[in-house]
Amino acid sequence: MFLKNCWYVAAWDHELIDGKLLARTLLEEAVLLYKGDSGQVVALQDRCCHRGVPLHLGRREGDCVRCMYHGLKFDASGKCIQIPGQEVVPPKLGVRSYPVVEKDHLVWIWMGDPALADPAQIIDFPYLRDPQWKGVPDYMHYDANWLLIVDNLSDFAHLAFVHTKTLGGSEEYAYVTKPVAIERLPRGFRVERWHMDAAPPPFHRKVLPAAEKDRHVDRRNIGHMHIPGIFFLESMFSPAGSGSEKGNREGTREYRNCQFMTPETRRTTHFFWTYLNNYEGDDHNVSRSLHQSLIEGFLEDKHLIEAQEKVLDADPGFKMLAVAADAALSHFRWTFDKLVAAERADEAARQGAEPKSIPIRAPHQAGLGA
Amino acid sequence: MFLKNCWYVAAWDHELIDGKLLARTLLEEAVLLYKGDSGQVVALQDRCCHRGVPLHLGRREGDCVRCMYHGLKFDASGKCIQIPGQEVVPPKLGVRSYPVVEKDHLVWIWMGDPALADPAQIIDFPYLRDPQWKGVPDYMHYDANWLLIVDNLSDFAHLAFVHTKTLGGSEEYAYVTKPVAIERLPRGFRVERWHMDAAPPPFHRKVLPAAEKDRHVDRRNIGHMHIPGIFFLESMFSPAGSGSEKGNREGTREYRNCQFMTPETRRTTHFFWTYLNNYEGDDHNVSRSLHQSLIEGFLEDKHLIEAQEKVLDADPGFKMLAVAADAALSHFRWTFDKLVAAERADEAARQGAEPKSIPIRAPHQAGLGA
Amino acid sequence: MFLKNCWYVAAWDHELIDGKLLARTLLEEAVLLYKGDSGQVVALQDRCCHRGVPLHLGRREGDCVRCMYHGLKFDASGKCIQIPGQEVVPPKLGVRSYPVVEKDHLVWIWMGDPALADPAQIIDFPYLRDPQWKGVPDYMHYDANWLLIVDNLSDFAHLAFVHTKTLGGSEEYAYVTKPVAIERLPRGFRVERWHMDAAPPPFHRKVLPAAEKDRHVDRRNIGHMHIPGIFFLESMFSPAGSGSEKGNREGTREYRNCQFMTPETRRTTHFFWTYLNNYEGDDHNVSRSLHQSLIEGFLEDKHLIEAQEKVLDADPGFKMLAVAADAALSHFRWTFDKLVAAERADEAARQGAEPKSIPIRAPHQAGLGA
Repeated sequence: MFLKNCWYVAAWDHELIDGKLLARTLLEEAVLLYKGDSGQVVALQDRCCHRGVPLHLGRREGDCVRCMYHGLKFDASGKCIQIPGQEVVPPKLGVRSYPVVEKDHLVWIWMGDPALADPAQIIDFPYLRDPQWKGVPDYMHYDANWLLIVDNLSDFAHLAFVHTKTLGGSEEYAYVTKPVAIERLPRGFRVERWHMDAAPPPFHRKVLPAAEKDRHVDRRNIGHMHIPGIFFLESMFSPAGSGSEKGNREGTREYRNCQFMTPETRRTTHFFWTYLNNYEGDDHNVSRSLHQSLIEGFLEDKHLIEAQEKVLDADPGFKMLAVAADAALSHFRWTFDKLVAAERADEAARQGAEPKSIPIRAPHQAGLGA
Repeated sequence: MFLKNCWYVAAWDHELIDGKLLARTLLEEAVLLYKGDSGQVVALQDRCCHRGVPLHLGRREGDCVRCMYHGLKFDASGKCIQIPGQEVVPPKLGVRSYPVVEKDHLVWIWMGDPALADPAQIIDFPYLRDPQWKGVPDYMHYDANWLLIVDNLSDFAHLAFVHTKTLGGSEEYAYVTKPVAIERLPRGFRVERWHMDAAPPPFHRKVLPAAEKDRHVDRRNIGHMHIPGIFFLESMFSPAGSGSEKGNREGTREYRNCQFMTPETRRTTHFFWTYLNNYEGDDHNVSRSLHQSLIEGFLEDKHLIEAQEKVLDADPGFKMLAVAADAALSHFRWTFDKLVAAERADEAARQGAEPKSIPIRAPHQAGLGA
Repeated sequence: MFLKNCWYVAAWDHELIDGKLLARTLLEEAVLLYKGDSGQVVALQDRCCHRGVPLHLGRREGDCVRCMYHGLKFDASGKCIQIPGQEVVPPKLGVRSYPVVEKDHLVWIWMGDPALADPAQIIDFPYLRDPQWKGVPDYMHYDANWLLIVDNLSDFAHLAFVHTKTLGGSEEYAYVTKPVAIERLPRGFRVERWHMDAAPPPFHRKVLPAAEKDRHVDRRNIGHMHIPGIFFLESMFSPAGSGSEKGNREGTREYRNCQFMTPETRRTTHFFWTYLNNYEGDDHNVSRSLHQSLIEGFLEDKHLIEAQEKVLDADPGFKMLAVAADAALSHFRWTFDKLVAAERADEAARQGAEPKSIPIRAPHQAGLGA
């Protein structure tokens, strides 16, 4: 049910400051994350190989961790390097370690075959390291399967019904427009929508100077969704009629939104996100207001999606019914299912006969970087 | 395990005022109940056919309801009549609707085959619509199978042990009397018990004028239990020795009690009830006192029955053991099991071969009406 | 999974004062415990044979108990002796009773075949009845399998890592010493450890007079673990170098610690314990301080062990890995598994063919008594 051989966001880097031993379940595996004294981020199976006590109840020592039940010590690779009361440590003794990469304030983890873990496959979102783009990195826990959140982000149709008073979307407009076409990608999709000459949506209106609050805007949204559940959204708000569709950027305010859905279990999700703007300068209240507005909007989604999860749990036989607006999510799920099936086939083949070569992987979908 | 083809109480009518979207699980199905602008009560499957979001999180529009995730709109028959973003709605698209009847302040629902739903089969309890009979309609939620509550109401024996200080029942009397005979009915039973020349039970004594509190009474109880779990009790308290057993009603105070047990799940029950009197006139404190006394008594039952449910859950193999006092409940369960078996056989036959005729149903057990 | 044919601690005797009906689940069976008017302790299945209501919701009458749903009455042997509403009680009607023995403030119960219950097999711990030894009997509930607590008590190695600041144990010392040899017994083990010339551990230091707090001590611990989960620990603290290892007891302070692990379910445990000293005289604050210190230490264990239980629950396939310090627990579990297997074989044989003789049992492991 999970795709193993891909990179997932495991944490924001600020979750690991001060040597914290962070226990986090990812894809139904208990993982311990910490940053060692050397600066290296370590991800180990969160279970001592001796009696099964979680290692996050232990003590960090340099880049190592010691189980504080009977004192076994493990290095950053998971190898056991000390057992109090005995001189010899069997060389193969240890716990599983996971490939992990810290990049642009995110900690990425590879839950599958370590031999296939290529850091170059990590999707790039350069705005996270660009000091001109400002925002508040945050986290939300969902009692729902991560694909239901991916679904939610895959259509603009729900904006009108769920977010009218927060993130915007006009109900009248929803009845008379058709869904925009999506661009199908090997590992996701791209969607672009223009909404010309409309009132600014509430979250944007809040941060505008008084003189601009009632001026219409031309709004452009470009969304990218990537396997396994990574969403980037570029938004531009230009003065209505200013010709932004022809490339004029004067008076334009822009946002960059990223959201990372990482399965905790099949029924719960880690949701990492930030919403960046490039115009606040030193006025941090813009970031703070946008952060609050987005939380408000996300809670509207969360309320529905968690209710949806309960309904689906109650009747696993229920078949959802596709409507025209579902093209994007249908493509994403079809793509995702194919990748999972291929991974399972690989696994089965490897278990049946030792593979003669590492299977060739398609080049990874490029990021959004300039 | 449930009997589908019969009428169940789904709600009191006051639960649907002001257009409320009431979510209620009945026989392990999630149902949405509401009263449309036309005054019609509507019962729909509480799950949008698109992505499974519960419809009770939606918005009522006239007699229709709109899912507030992507805006699909359903009419009172469950048919989908609008999908934002597309012009054509497939004609068979929709959610299940349930036959529903509002009568004498109760909302009745038919969970089985709609073709068999005959409103004439709804049991009549005329006191609910007679303004001379007054009381407070109420609801209690039980963490127990509804048949355990039916069992409880099927014997007078437990009164002495559970309700001595509330609804009455003398322990000494219980040791020396035999259970009264019951009248077996095709879909339930009738039981009548006279208890002559005894102190008034606590709940009745409370509402008596001071001068009558210590006078003995002749008490007559007539109980009716109906499939699937509908209980009516007529009670008369006459001055001891006044000849009420020969028809003299002078100085008699009467009560009419109705209780409706509707399975929520196999382990939980909706319990609707009211306790009516015909003598309070404008003194609502009589109703209020009786209401409080009955709640006190019901909580005594609930405490035991919910403990019993846990015991039965812990060991599904436990066989209850019948004693002489169990004649009524034994007959009820035997009758009920036969009806369920017949229903299952009908279903199986229909699935095997398209039935040539609707099976003939026995005429429904008549109500208690005058 | 449980060993049935052995004695378990079911309660402290103070839990049964004033006729209390104590409901306690033991080895996943619901048991009712009470002390009758005659002084006899009674243990019955906590489920009325009529409708399954728990008997602990009933009423004690002398040595009997009455179910307060319909009034059935059971004597101390579990036999039903009264059914209100009928004159004849079927002679075999009743609930299961369990052999039970009150001894030295403990209530012991036999959950297996009553024919095999021999009170002489109850392990003797004479300090519990000796007024010179003083302490506070107590109880703790564990959300963990009882064998995980047995494991914990089976090694001294964890003291250094879990209890450094409470019960003592030096981390430096743990790295340079080897586990002490254990003495394997047919139904458990004995372990003895001397720790010479060290600072007194925190719990002991707290109760020392100021002048002694900083003097080194020679510490001797003798632990006994018995099937099914009974732990005795004798501790002596002598002035360092005073020759206690040669028998000199001058200036020695001693403790007697007993802990009884009784499975509630496979995942939860009743933990009865007391920690006795022989020197407090009339200064009850010594007992109180030791009691508090031990609770502090036990909570350190409980925190780890309950986390361990969750980890094991999450992956039943996880194989623990033995280290050198595990000799005691490995022997105990091996012994225990053999006894369970023998018990199962006996049962199977008895069910296959009526046994011709009661199987011969090995003489029970003697207690610690002088």
